[in-house]
Amino acid sequence: MKTENRFLKPTPVQYLEKLPGGQEIFIKREDLLGFSFGGNKCRIGAAFLEDMRRRGADYMVSYGSRKSNLNRVMAALCRSRKIPCLIISPQEEGVQEDGFNAVLADDMGAERVFCERSAVADTVEDTLRSLKARGYQPYYIYGDAHGMGNEETARSAYRDAYDEIRRWEEKNQVEFQAIFLASGTGMTQGGLLAGRRERGGREEIVGISVAREEKAGAAAVRRYAGMGNESICFETDYRCGGYGIYDAGIENVIQTMMERHGIALDPVYTGKAYAGMLRWLDRYGDKIRNVLFIHTGGLPLYFDYLNKRMEVER
Amino acid sequence: MKTENRFLKPTPVQYLEKLPGGQEIFIKREDLLGFSFGGNKCRIGAAFLEDMRRRGADYMVSYGSRKSNLNRVMAALCRSRKIPCLIISPQEEGVQEDGFNAVLADDMGAERVFCERSAVADTVEDTLRSLKARGYQPYYIYGDAHGMGNEETARSAYRDAYDEIRRWEEKNQVEFQAIFLASGTGMTQGGLLAGRRERGGREEIVGISVAREEKAGAAAVRRYAGMGNESICFETDYRCGGYGIYDAGIENVIQTMMERHGIALDPVYTGKAYAGMLRWLDRYGDKIRNVLFIHTGGLPLYFDYLNKRMEVER
Repeated sequence: MKTENRFLKPTPVQYLEKLPGGQEIFIKREDLLGFSFGGNKCRIGAAFLEDMRRRGADYMVSYGSRKSNLNRVMAALCRSRKIPCLIISPQEEGVQEDGFNAVLADDMGAERVFCERSAVADTVEDTLRSLKARGYQPYYIYGDAHGMGNEETARSAYRDAYDEIRRWEEKNQVEFQAIFLASGTGMTQGGLLAGRRERGGREEIVGISVAREEKAGAAAVRRYAGMGNESICFETDYRCGGYGIYDAGIENVIQTMMERHGIALDPVYTGKAYAGMLRWLDRYGDKIRNVLFIHTGGLPLYFDYLNKRMEVER
Repeated sequence: MKTENRFLKPTPVQYLEKLPGGQEIFIKREDLLGFSFGGNKCRIGAAFLEDMRRRGADYMVSYGSRKSNLNRVMAALCRSRKIPCLIISPQEEGVQEDGFNAVLADDMGAERVFCERSAVADTVEDTLRSLKARGYQPYYIYGDAHGMGNEETARSAYRDAYDEIRRWEEKNQVEFQAIFLASGTGMTQGGLLAGRRERGGREEIVGISVAREEKAGAAAVRRYAGMGNESICFETDYRCGGYGIYDAGIENVIQTMMERHGIALDPVYTGKAYAGMLRWLDRYGDKIRNVLFIHTGGLPLYFDYLNKRMEVER
């Protein structure tokens, strides 16, 4: 009982509502994972940290935008273990507000290195070389400087979460015909697909792309899943123009979710994915009865969204 | 399984750490109640809503500051039930940023009536009279216009939570010698004390006052507990000057909690209470082995705090 359970897994699954098309929607509250505002990146970050420990490394190197949920969690996890953490971030064009995830990562003492988007691989290599020269054994979460080679670690997080879902289904005698989630890097969807393969599951696992186009996005998901050319559901019709872009339809879904269920969705990931899911089910969901939406968290982005709205209204 | 469990009770209890004084600290994550950013006001708001329904009323009337956690939750609960909600708020002196709780209550369509602090009772009476004239049957959460008479409803919420704690202790074979929490209105501490009386519990229930002085604060707690003159632990030494005021010590506790455990505390309630608890235990905690801190939530206030810090740094 005194063993640490900082994530408070398994996360609860909650019944939400019946859609006009007859589908019953359930939601898995990954946003309530108990560490650093929760979200899928808790599980994924923990998998990286564990892999790092196994390999005997002592310096965490991550990559991602200033607004990244993963890097917020990564910085917090490292801090809690007293492991130094360095985040390489692309130089964004134009002046942008940083948002809460950036502040939270800074608070946790993460070191930050900026680079041009075209120079990521070089920057990763330089960073790793310089850390080694200083006597550290650095760990780069994505594998090699081109971001390849550590898919298995990322995959393990949601392969395990897939098992959690199966156990819930068995216990509650509910069978999901489809699982929906926001699909960005492909790590979460890839892990779920790997879990499904292992367990012989048959539900659709539908990734709603929040940014990437079909080709690059599906390739990333397959890579993280450890799959070949098997068909996957990576849906690019609901991207609303690209990463971080949203419209009145998505804002309406966010508002409705809060009104009906008191659950916060953000416009970058979960709100876009939920809105996409509703449209997908309307088009293709005839034969689907029970649906699980995975709330992948990202709470700081919800408050960024409120900040942005408050600025506009001022 | 399809019955609604929007709060996702019982909330988890998590082991945190051993203090230098030897006390083992556990935390009850009321911040992870699953509705509208969680917190103790979920349970209390739900108790008011249920009492309103029982009485056949159809218009919710609440009172509190623009920044109130209770009113954020109250507005969201009412919206989810399609019950109209009106909040009477004191006119604050000076120009103040509203903060996220105000925006969230507005988003949920709560009507807002402002009044001078000296005219609250009159405003409550006028509001109730005018709603009745419009054909509604209004429900004022605090009872009469002077805020008396509905203590039993407020009490019931944390009387039940006390039982949750007892069940956790039995299941996990841990006995708490003290329970700590932020004490503001007195509803939460009062409910816990009522629960303890009913079950014959013997642990200290220590309310760390976040604002009120001894006399008014302890009287409110006793009133909500349904107690006479029995002694209670309402600690006023850690108020740091009053409501919403905090110092470097409290900020340090907030930072440390995030670094060690990835848990957000805010400076108005939970951070102040945790800091107070540490000092209390240092002074009086020799014989205490196991301590439960109740994280009473208030997540939007944490992001208000980050906003304030970001403004200062800009």
